[in-house]
Amino acid sequence: MSDLHGIKANEAAVCGSTQPWSVIQTTLKLTADGLLPAIAQQYDTGEVLMLAWMNMAALDETLMTGRVCYWSRSRNKLWRKGEESGQVQHLKEIRIDCDGDALLLLVDQTGPACHTGRVSCFYNAIRNHQVEVITAPLIDPAVLYHHK
Amino acid sequence: MSDLHGIKANEAAVCGSTQPWSVIQTTLKLTADGLLPAIAQQYDTGEVLMLAWMNMAALDETLMTGRVCYWSRSRNKLWRKGEESGQVQHLKEIRIDCDGDALLLLVDQTGPACHTGRVSCFYNAIRNHQVEVITAPLIDPAVLYHHK
Repeated sequence: MSDLHGIKANEAAVCGSTQPWSVIQTTLKLTADGLLPAIAQQYDTGEVLMLAWMNMAALDETLMTGRVCYWSRSRNKLWRKGEESGQVQHLKEIRIDCDGDALLLLVDQTGPACHTGRVSCFYNAIRNHQVEVITAPLIDPAVLYHHK
Repeated sequence: MSDLHGIKANEAAVCGSTQPWSVIQTTLKLTADGLLPAIAQQYDTGEVLMLAWMNMAALDETLMTGRVCYWSRSRNKLWRKGEESGQVQHLKEIRIDCDGDALLLLVDQTGPACHTGRVSCFYNAIRNHQVEVITAPLIDPAVLYHHK
């Protein structure tokens, strides 16, 4: 296994082992567009809030500022979460999966994560061949996007 | 908002509203390869176990059998989680996000989810410019992949 380096070398590494982030960074498996899917999870309750995407610039900015910044695939630019709604995500920790192609962000979310005003974007549940809306907004999205 | 249908119509729908899965299904936003990212979360502890991918066949099979089936991008075929390791995922519920481009699977995981023998694939934490291995395997992967 001596040919393994970076994130793959951690598979067999003991708990507590470290490698420089600068080394690991070069061994991540980005999409053709240079992106990684990033799951945002509320750090204390464990609720999964959303899934979005990061490029290296978004990841670097997030690590530097402690405020979560994604890459918006629809707007094709950096998306500082909460820049319009005010509902920011404060970073607690970033985790990387075994094969270096996905991120888990432990965050402290201000207000709702979802643009619909719901805490989580995952409010549609498949139950008995139906898709059911299982949560209500905390805040009316019309309010959310008029008061910055 | 009368032009909205399927998953987008649920944005403004009240809690408890339902639409047929057969309708919602046609309004999901798949990748160019026909895939959706799927987050697996242990239903009772809230631990995020892994991120993998599903196509419609994997999703249909998972809903039908109650055992999680992904699409393996590396092997280019259906991947019934646990088919080699025995560490299967029993489905509790599937949730869909607001814009229909990501899935959250609430599962009951048998043993470790990760091929390294760790409970979760997200065992690498970025801390102080280092990437630290923060959990140890529950089971030696050599054991995991020799006893089916």
